[in-house]
Amino acid sequence: MIILDGKKLKEERLKALKNKIKDLKLSLAVIQIGNDEASSVYINQKKKACENLNVEFSHIKLEENITETKLLNIIKDLNNSDVTGILLQLPIPNHLNKMTLQNAIDYKKDVDGLNVINVNRLINNEKGLLPCTAKGIINMLKAYNIELAGKHVVIVGRSNLVGRPVSNLFLNENATVTICHSKTKNLNEITKLADILIAATGKKHLITAEMIKQGAIIVDVGINKIDGTLYGDVDYENVKEKTSYITPVPGGIGPMTICCLMENIYEAYLLQNNN
Amino acid sequence: MIILDGKKLKEERLKALKNKIKDLKLSLAVIQIGNDEASSVYINQKKKACENLNVEFSHIKLEENITETKLLNIIKDLNNSDVTGILLQLPIPNHLNKMTLQNAIDYKKDVDGLNVINVNRLINNEKGLLPCTAKGIINMLKAYNIELAGKHVVIVGRSNLVGRPVSNLFLNENATVTICHSKTKNLNEITKLADILIAATGKKHLITAEMIKQGAIIVDVGINKIDGTLYGDVDYENVKEKTSYITPVPGGIGPMTICCLMENIYEAYLLQNNN
Repeated sequence: MIILDGKKLKEERLKALKNKIKDLKLSLAVIQIGNDEASSVYINQKKKACENLNVEFSHIKLEENITETKLLNIIKDLNNSDVTGILLQLPIPNHLNKMTLQNAIDYKKDVDGLNVINVNRLINNEKGLLPCTAKGIINMLKAYNIELAGKHVVIVGRSNLVGRPVSNLFLNENATVTICHSKTKNLNEITKLADILIAATGKKHLITAEMIKQGAIIVDVGINKIDGTLYGDVDYENVKEKTSYITPVPGGIGPMTICCLMENIYEAYLLQNNN
Repeated sequence: MIILDGKKLKEERLKALKNKIKDLKLSLAVIQIGNDEASSVYINQKKKACENLNVEFSHIKLEENITETKLLNIIKDLNNSDVTGILLQLPIPNHLNKMTLQNAIDYKKDVDGLNVINVNRLINNEKGLLPCTAKGIINMLKAYNIELAGKHVVIVGRSNLVGRPVSNLFLNENATVTICHSKTKNLNEITKLADILIAATGKKHLITAEMIKQGAIIVDVGINKIDGTLYGDVDYENVKEKTSYITPVPGGIGPMTICCLMENIYEAYLLQNNN
């Protein structure tokens, strides 16, 4: 069993990236609306990563009750500024339309890969900015030379942030893809078919040893904080010996997500400069 | 075994639609580039359907070597005209960018459901214009009161026109979805898991009786014309007795696709008039 070490891989990749961007003036603007505690933690991680790479970081913190019109104007100004990447931290309050706002971000600055133009490019297997977690998963598997073509990938979770984009990425890599979710019957039988199992449900230890086949590759996207401790969606301790490769939580996909955000800022720069 | 009769269902639905739109002035513009023979046949089917419903039909036939700029201007004029629906007949010549052209069509007139805004709405499970074949499949199953939630749907084929949109539609209906394609290993074993099997490969009789489970529901999207005869992707004669429901070719999904196009023209009208 080999541990897929996201922390180490992130360090290696960011070192290479730092070298590539050392003469460039890159920047990231993160828009936060309200005071969601988890969001503040994530934004702080992004800030640190930017600082380590000499990417200018601006944190645009807005009132919970901001109007959509005001927000659209702020995004418009950022589009017209020389900022390289723009990120709208999720979740946002209910009175705001997520799709409208994400589509207002210039697709060449959309480092979260959630603008319609980037979503459509992914579906059409054309080059564009990709959602960070989905891209992080693929980059991780490729870094360990894991063959994806022809593999049966079972994804548990159908969110727009992870499940659906990752399914398209794996299809583009010629994998066979199954998407399961809370309404799936016989989940245990379907997960057992997986050569590669992606758990992205937000349910602590949903995936147990009985649910996987011997030698499967397990990718755990879950970040479930309970009483101050972080748990994945996979019962790591009991599952790991049955696997060929497995990501830990923390230290697996989490670091890869941050790593891909930084790589996306550089890709956004290249897009804006027609490379 | 029950035959899913698309021809009959189309007649019923279009009769109801005709009544709804009898006082409206609806219209469809179909853009054809070049002289693809199959395209001409499909366009003729659309024309006939329009005539039957008193929907004004215009066929905009353009030279094979038309420039993208000229074409974009034609689309712009149609967007600004009072035409209800605009359809770019596929395939188009290689010198033209399909995505650019589809995205140039006003999403409220995009009766093929291929504009990014409609694609994104589908992924986000929000109301929009849906691709006709994908919608036709779901409408057919629902018309026969076939429960979709929790069912395992196996889709063979990953195209942007059928496979991918239909996978999102089934996910939105709470089905578990597997997408297979030409690079899938052990296709026979995966198709046998299907409660509902969607064949959209363009390969005559790829799906044989050994590949399905007893009582499965089979939807055949294939239209393979060989020496003047039409064949589906499913070996209908040998498969049918093992199924609970099956679509014939012709007379199955083909008519449902045309039917959905007509329904989309009405939906486009409603969208344009804020209903």
